[in-house]
Amino acid sequence: MKFSDVVSKLATVEQSSLNQHPTLDPEITGMAAIDEATVTTLSYIEGDKFASQIDTTAATALILPRNEGLQVRAAERGMAWVASPYPRLTFAEAIALFYQPFVPTPEIHPTAVIDPSATIGNNVAIGAHVVIQASVTVGDGVRIHPNVVIYPEAKIGDRTTLHANCVIHERTQIGSDCVIHSGAAIGSEGFGFVPTAEGWFKMQQSGRTVLEEGVEIGCNSTVDRPAVGETRIGRYTKLDNLVHIAHSCQIGEACAMAAQVGMAGGVNVGDRVILGGQVGIANQVNIGDGVQAGAQCGIHSDIAAGAIVLGSPAIPFKQFLRVAAAWNRLPEMQKTLRDVQKQLGLSRD
Amino acid sequence: MKFSDVVSKLATVEQSSLNQHPTLDPEITGMAAIDEATVTTLSYIEGDKFASQIDTTAATALILPRNEGLQVRAAERGMAWVASPYPRLTFAEAIALFYQPFVPTPEIHPTAVIDPSATIGNNVAIGAHVVIQASVTVGDGVRIHPNVVIYPEAKIGDRTTLHANCVIHERTQIGSDCVIHSGAAIGSEGFGFVPTAEGWFKMQQSGRTVLEEGVEIGCNSTVDRPAVGETRIGRYTKLDNLVHIAHSCQIGEACAMAAQVGMAGGVNVGDRVILGGQVGIANQVNIGDGVQAGAQCGIHSDIAAGAIVLGSPAIPFKQFLRVAAAWNRLPEMQKTLRDVQKQLGLSRD
Amino acid sequence: MKFSDVVSKLATVEQSSLNQHPTLDPEITGMAAIDEATVTTLSYIEGDKFASQIDTTAATALILPRNEGLQVRAAERGMAWVASPYPRLTFAEAIALFYQPFVPTPEIHPTAVIDPSATIGNNVAIGAHVVIQASVTVGDGVRIHPNVVIYPEAKIGDRTTLHANCVIHERTQIGSDCVIHSGAAIGSEGFGFVPTAEGWFKMQQSGRTVLEEGVEIGCNSTVDRPAVGETRIGRYTKLDNLVHIAHSCQIGEACAMAAQVGMAGGVNVGDRVILGGQVGIANQVNIGDGVQAGAQCGIHSDIAAGAIVLGSPAIPFKQFLRVAAAWNRLPEMQKTLRDVQKQLGLSRD
Repeated sequence: MKFSDVVSKLATVEQSSLNQHPTLDPEITGMAAIDEATVTTLSYIEGDKFASQIDTTAATALILPRNEGLQVRAAERGMAWVASPYPRLTFAEAIALFYQPFVPTPEIHPTAVIDPSATIGNNVAIGAHVVIQASVTVGDGVRIHPNVVIYPEAKIGDRTTLHANCVIHERTQIGSDCVIHSGAAIGSEGFGFVPTAEGWFKMQQSGRTVLEEGVEIGCNSTVDRPAVGETRIGRYTKLDNLVHIAHSCQIGEACAMAAQVGMAGGVNVGDRVILGGQVGIANQVNIGDGVQAGAQCGIHSDIAAGAIVLGSPAIPFKQFLRVAAAWNRLPEMQKTLRDVQKQLGLSRD
Repeated sequence: MKFSDVVSKLATVEQSSLNQHPTLDPEITGMAAIDEATVTTLSYIEGDKFASQIDTTAATALILPRNEGLQVRAAERGMAWVASPYPRLTFAEAIALFYQPFVPTPEIHPTAVIDPSATIGNNVAIGAHVVIQASVTVGDGVRIHPNVVIYPEAKIGDRTTLHANCVIHERTQIGSDCVIHSGAAIGSEGFGFVPTAEGWFKMQQSGRTVLEEGVEIGCNSTVDRPAVGETRIGRYTKLDNLVHIAHSCQIGEACAMAAQVGMAGGVNVGDRVILGGQVGIANQVNIGDGVQAGAQCGIHSDIAAGAIVLGSPAIPFKQFLRVAAAWNRLPEMQKTLRDVQKQLGLSRD
Repeated sequence: MKFSDVVSKLATVEQSSLNQHPTLDPEITGMAAIDEATVTTLSYIEGDKFASQIDTTAATALILPRNEGLQVRAAERGMAWVASPYPRLTFAEAIALFYQPFVPTPEIHPTAVIDPSATIGNNVAIGAHVVIQASVTVGDGVRIHPNVVIYPEAKIGDRTTLHANCVIHERTQIGSDCVIHSGAAIGSEGFGFVPTAEGWFKMQQSGRTVLEEGVEIGCNSTVDRPAVGETRIGRYTKLDNLVHIAHSCQIGEACAMAAQVGMAGGVNVGDRVILGGQVGIANQVNIGDGVQAGAQCGIHSDIAAGAIVLGSPAIPFKQFLRVAAAWNRLPEMQKTLRDVQKQLGLSRD
């Protein structure tokens, strides 16, 4: 496909920017990162980190930000380019022109074991060795990859994908257009043990887990159900791999949580919250809308909407930067303090 | 069921406390958290955090602690209540009156693949696509959910439950009344590689993993077996999801470990130890009986019995609180120190 | 087997050291840790931590380091011993004399579902309920345990082992002599969501994951594929359980990563890097050859080759030790500083 044809199919570019060098119109066969580009691949530059690649890349076609310097340099090097206010988004758009993800054929494999009381929608793909238990409801266009197990009374919304070997536990409700990646366990028993003089008393987990529409759960992540009520993840929220969401957590809409995040029971997370990798949140904590927490944060108390926090215990990120800088200089501070004590004739404690 | 009937079935309440308001006896249809209560659900209050809910809850029936203020307030609001020295435990008891957890029917699904040399007890449920390999022993009343794989020579004790897609490796011994949740891997090879000039030399992991009776292992957790000897988890110990127990660890009885705890090889953990989420323990460390370690602790050296620790590296929690408070004020300390140096005419280092 | 016979089969010992006590030649039936030794097991001592066991062990045969004190003491206690420059390596060698790991028979179970377009090599073991999809290539001598799922177009190299319930995603290339442990997910979709005003836009993950020869991936670990290009793990690199490798990471050769390590997208790791448990690495960071990072490190910026780092944010370990020591004394420093201020008549800020 000619570069100009690719560009004509992209909604997020500034089409007008293409006309500046109409003679540069290479054939594009696929997409590549800027440092792995070839003469037939399309790449993008966004942010300062990769800007210097403009001088060395083998690419002959680029998606560029609104940055005149980069644009001039691309032209100097004989590269076709198009401008976008959101180069990474445009790159994502362009990938979808060249790549058709694997989706299973909408048929039910004969080795699948489906309870007669289950309700299965139209155009559903059910892979080999899938197990669907009593009173499960599967919506239209659902894709269930091999070896998935669905416990009784779960509901799977329209067009949702369940990847191989994930487990959906009893009563779980998964909305439409969700993706559950391989090995994830959804709606399993919350960790509910009451300490007694005789040991741990198991609290039955009679509640359920609800994932609203458009939720994505990463590989081998776990979302537990509570003793009573619901664990709920709001629509369009995305979880990476190996994330743990405990019983009774209420997660808002359009959040993103990087790999290995863990939260204890009853945490309330607002909308559009972003958590870095390995963040931990203590039980019953409230996280306001739009909060961003850096990787490895340990959050032990409520965080106000819009705050950006770092550290364990988590503190506002500006404070963290100052504290971390001082932290590195602690031994020097200690030495200085000793000198001061000596000068003043103060005894050292 | 009438509230009075519910109460009459609860072993942990003070039955006498019910008689104070015999006319208040609502119909109870289920259990709910205090902030999600309705006129037909039973809730509980325990601890200060939820005490203020007494003024706003829609509940008409409550399990209350021995707290006269709360009891008077409940009566004023026209709510039936009963006192318990352990409200949360009583709540757990009451859930079990209303909730029958899903258990599979004790039958062997025709798609299960069971080696003829395996020994299967009475009243065992073996789900679809389960694989049980050579010389495995499965006790009476065991429940094996679909797609579980049991490697050769493992033993599964009476009444133990193996949830979907978990894997039990060769020679593993699981005691009676254990629960292994979905996706957990028990008795897999320890991470045993010896560095040599030519690279990593794999040490065969000839040992086994032993779980004593009443142990519970969370979803997608892993308990490795050692090169020689045993990895052992003592009876009634409970592990949450995504926990990693390395080869040769010896865990005591009645411990509880929150999600994403990880421990390196050869760690010794005493009885009744409680580890918060994401705690890490270095290899060969000894943790005494009754130790409590807060979330995200990094434990690099032995911890004496009964200690409560926080931080990474972990220190006694009282010290941690003081250090953390000072840590937050580090930039101010640094500034003060500079002022002092200036006042004294000391050169800044 | 006589101790002398065992020793004669070990390549890494100093054979000559055996002749000093030829009359001590006990029968050896197996291997044991030094603190669990019996009169018929062989153990080893390496390092100071276990040296004192020489006085108490029940062993009658030992692998010892080049340490005359230990050798003399062993002789005094009537124990047979042999010296090795690498006692732990020798111990690993000796285990392999006594232990035959379980390997499945090279046959294809009738319940396996194999797409007719797949290419299967010679002497392959394919367990019950395995699913192999379109255009997959499986090399010679591969061992696939039960319930494994392989998505289309994946390649599995010769003699590689896939343990139960792991999932190999589309286009993944696994080299020869690899081991993928139970529940691991290889080549799954990277966490690629582009923020837009309307929410998260999913970037298709059109790339692939490549594991070179001799790679080992622990139970329930995840190695994602990228939007474009490759995620690659170099030959002989070993990952423990519950590790997360994000899209586009490039990992060198002969690295070792302990359990629960996580790295964000686009991280470059050199050769022979060792990461402790729960280490986290931020996106796009470069880690030089031979770097060692202690458990729970948080690495946010590039680390030069050969560096040893600790802490979060990670700093050189010598600096970390000094900082951590001062950190513990922060409250005392704060008090001293107040005393100094008082002495100088400075106002407290």
